[in-house]
Amino acid sequence: MSDFNHYYAVIFTSTLTDNIDGYEAEAEKILNLAKKQKGFLGFESARQDIGISISYWETQEDILNWKNQTDHLLAQEKGKSQWYKNYKIRISKVEREYTSIN
Amino acid sequence: MSDFNHYYAVIFTSTLTDNIDGYEAEAEKILNLAKKQKGFLGFESARQDIGISISYWETQEDILNWKNQTDHLLAQEKGKSQWYKNYKIRISKVEREYTSIN
Repeated sequence: MSDFNHYYAVIFTSTLTDNIDGYEAEAEKILNLAKKQKGFLGFESARQDIGISISYWETQEDILNWKNQTDHLLAQEKGKSQWYKNYKIRISKVEREYTSIN
Repeated sequence: MSDFNHYYAVIFTSTLTDNIDGYEAEAEKILNLAKKQKGFLGFESARQDIGISISYWETQEDILNWKNQTDHLLAQEKGKSQWYKNYKIRISKVEREYTSIN
């Protein structure tokens, strides 16, 4: 355990409004942008009643840089004003992990 | 920030096999059981290409107790042998959070 390299998970949960024009295209654009950021490790998402998107990052500084990236800021504004009915963001530090051996 | 009470998120991501007989009923049973455990704070899930389930807990000890709870152990075995093609469990400490003001 002691040699496990901690990293960070940004847990984004949301519900959408009825007005999601442009949402899918913007989400794809922003994900492609995230993948190019320093410290980006991965992304997973699924949506049913709620959407859960998790991005993984090397450090908290990487997360802060990504949060303040210009195009991402614009997308955040559109998300707040139009697409998201509610959302919650949790910054968490991954301390242990277990993977199936299949 | 300094008065934020840390808590823990167990991030469970998975893909299912084609043999999911009994999965939905068991998942509901186990969730109801989890809700009664000490330290349980909440649960969120969604499934599309992959499933993401996150349970929230007060302490790491609560997570360990839940991991080793008898009925949950049985469900874990069924999950490993039958339902899950792949899965990954991440234990993470929630250090900050932001909620929409809607």
